[in-house]
Amino acid sequence: MAAEGSGRAGRLLTDRMEAFSDGVFAIAITLLVLEITIPADRSDLLRAVVEEWPVYLGYLVSFFTIGAVWMAHSAITEFLDHVDPILLRINLVLLMVVGLLPVPTRLMADYLQSSSGERVAVTIFGLVLLSTRLMVLALWQYGVRHDLVRPDLADEHVQGVSAKLAPSLGGYAVALAVGLIAPLVAVGLYLAIALYLVIPFREIALVIGRRTRPGSS
Amino acid sequence: MAAEGSGRAGRLLTDRMEAFSDGVFAIAITLLVLEITIPADRSDLLRAVVEEWPVYLGYLVSFFTIGAVWMAHSAITEFLDHVDPILLRINLVLLMVVGLLPVPTRLMADYLQSSSGERVAVTIFGLVLLSTRLMVLALWQYGVRHDLVRPDLADEHVQGVSAKLAPSLGGYAVALAVGLIAPLVAVGLYLAIALYLVIPFREIALVIGRRTRPGSS
Amino acid sequence: MAAEGSGRAGRLLTDRMEAFSDGVFAIAITLLVLEITIPADRSDLLRAVVEEWPVYLGYLVSFFTIGAVWMAHSAITEFLDHVDPILLRINLVLLMVVGLLPVPTRLMADYLQSSSGERVAVTIFGLVLLSTRLMVLALWQYGVRHDLVRPDLADEHVQGVSAKLAPSLGGYAVALAVGLIAPLVAVGLYLAIALYLVIPFREIALVIGRRTRPGSS
Amino acid sequence: MAAEGSGRAGRLLTDRMEAFSDGVFAIAITLLVLEITIPADRSDLLRAVVEEWPVYLGYLVSFFTIGAVWMAHSAITEFLDHVDPILLRINLVLLMVVGLLPVPTRLMADYLQSSSGERVAVTIFGLVLLSTRLMVLALWQYGVRHDLVRPDLADEHVQGVSAKLAPSLGGYAVALAVGLIAPLVAVGLYLAIALYLVIPFREIALVIGRRTRPGSS
Repeated sequence: MAAEGSGRAGRLLTDRMEAFSDGVFAIAITLLVLEITIPADRSDLLRAVVEEWPVYLGYLVSFFTIGAVWMAHSAITEFLDHVDPILLRINLVLLMVVGLLPVPTRLMADYLQSSSGERVAVTIFGLVLLSTRLMVLALWQYGVRHDLVRPDLADEHVQGVSAKLAPSLGGYAVALAVGLIAPLVAVGLYLAIALYLVIPFREIALVIGRRTRPGSS
Repeated sequence: MAAEGSGRAGRLLTDRMEAFSDGVFAIAITLLVLEITIPADRSDLLRAVVEEWPVYLGYLVSFFTIGAVWMAHSAITEFLDHVDPILLRINLVLLMVVGLLPVPTRLMADYLQSSSGERVAVTIFGLVLLSTRLMVLALWQYGVRHDLVRPDLADEHVQGVSAKLAPSLGGYAVALAVGLIAPLVAVGLYLAIALYLVIPFREIALVIGRRTRPGSS
Repeated sequence: MAAEGSGRAGRLLTDRMEAFSDGVFAIAITLLVLEITIPADRSDLLRAVVEEWPVYLGYLVSFFTIGAVWMAHSAITEFLDHVDPILLRINLVLLMVVGLLPVPTRLMADYLQSSSGERVAVTIFGLVLLSTRLMVLALWQYGVRHDLVRPDLADEHVQGVSAKLAPSLGGYAVALAVGLIAPLVAVGLYLAIALYLVIPFREIALVIGRRTRPGSS
Repeated sequence: MAAEGSGRAGRLLTDRMEAFSDGVFAIAITLLVLEITIPADRSDLLRAVVEEWPVYLGYLVSFFTIGAVWMAHSAITEFLDHVDPILLRINLVLLMVVGLLPVPTRLMADYLQSSSGERVAVTIFGLVLLSTRLMVLALWQYGVRHDLVRPDLADEHVQGVSAKLAPSLGGYAVALAVGLIAPLVAVGLYLAIALYLVIPFREIALVIGRRTRPGSS
């Protein structure tokens, strides 16, 4: 409490914050499976499973969204020299939003393709997805502005992280707007954003480049 | 077992106790989401979600209460030099109470604004919240009285932690009494106590202070 | 796989085995809460909660049984120098039995005081409790017999752990037999065994002894 | 993000990837228990429990399959010198498949011995089991091909791991084909594969050999 933000204690708390956050991320990402129910209709199982596609779509979107948050969180805490009490609380709010995600995921899956409530459900889902991303950005921005990042870190590295975290917000804004007209398209966009955040295009390009240009490595 | 409390073993067990406790805190805080159900009424989803506000209120109160317990626990274990068998068991009872919290949270949410059982549900909720705090205090008091805190720690630091842990007990006592007359107000108080424990007022004041007085940093 | 049991790798795997086991213990002990349901009878909440006492009794027994297993496990892995492939699998079976515990706990709570099935439910509960203890003992015995314990450990320490692990088996045997005649008494015995394993009588006696004989510390 | 794959950061991320993966494995393996329900038929409890054998069979298969994945994952990350962004994502897909496993486990248990849907359920179960193994193999192959394994590791060790990971794929292919004709036999094969992956035959043979040939140790 009192000495939370100071030197040695700050570094110890970074470890503990990482361990606790990893725990919450791992549990939230695994609890998503509890929202998938077994089809009750026993006459045609394959068709019943296929007809549950919104549940699986929701699982995919939320799994990769939490996965992307976890990866961004790993990069951020790795770049932090120490934590302070305010950062610890920003992190707690991030964990709260991530921990809440299974509920709007199920809500979206239940109401997708439904005559009423579809737009409300998809919008709530999108707002919670956006919130996870906003909190990740807040965590990083706070760390940068209050000199919590490692002193040995080059400015371009810091700006590189900022540049990678921000663009998805625009994507969420577009998807939220689209969701008011075409909810299903919006969910497709949420999946696209999550995959965009997770798939390391630049690295894959490097790997392919190395293979096709034999002399370069 | 036999050598549990002695030097080296005691320090090893501190790590293991931290890891196990972090696990239980992370799981309990994330399991809270399982108490939130999807509205069955499909006619007006937005209204149905809004009408479930006691469930979300309960989620907020219990999330930040466990969050505050986790932060206090981090501070305490950081200040401990080693653990002994009795402290390990006090910690186990703390984990039991925290692990139980999802049940009274749901109970409170189910019965809030209900004609019967409201007072009983809110009182049970408050007693479990109070118990988490009492066990945190017991953990710290035991550590201090049996010389388990780090020898390099100044007395004022030790007293600082004690001073931060105690006041919330008075808050819980007031809220418990209020709950017998106005249950909803008591739940509001429980939220206020959790937020008071989580929000680092002093640090925010320092940050604001630094911004308004440009020459001080 | 191939190099699993050899020196350096064996020590690395000890850490990983501890982390994984701590995770499973923490989750199993916290999942117990999901077996507690909210009373459906809304007319007299306090009475409805009180009438659910077998559920709370089951929570207590299983919580402290897993707690005792976790403490024994901590002591054992702390005394191990390295692990080998067979010990890793014995540990996996231990985790399986512990992970299963929420089911017989609920079964016992559902059938206690019921006209039929009470004896079967309490016996199944007892057998799973006994199995957790048997697997802990198997883990330790295997480690001792295959020279996996730390070489610097005195023989009396090794025998001390063995002496602490074995007696509870006799307790479980008695309770299982009692359960065939008086199931409720057996559950009481299971609670007594769990508390006996968790409460550090010797240490409490020392603490009390130190207080009453002022010159001894 | 930017510096994810480079030296120091790569090693830090290995720790974080291990911790997060251990968390997901521990949770998925423990959540399997939630798929076991208490028999509703109160007249003959023992018979009701026995008649639920497909649920317990599913628990066994999935528990040991995740256990085997965890052990292979431990061996792989132990042999890795550092991770790169692509490996991190392959690991994420592995975690997604493992996290999904409770659903097909329950599906298989619900439809086994049922007149319709049995073949579909067992095939889906087998495909997800196979996928967990395929992702483990992909993780290892990617690491080997992109020079992420420890430089001090002998080629024979690397080939030893590859040789241990591959054969089970053939077993799954056979079991999937058998499942189209005799679903129950296929589930038996899935259990056999999981046990084959978990039981350390070579080490047990060594232990027995040492006992029967007293002069060899």
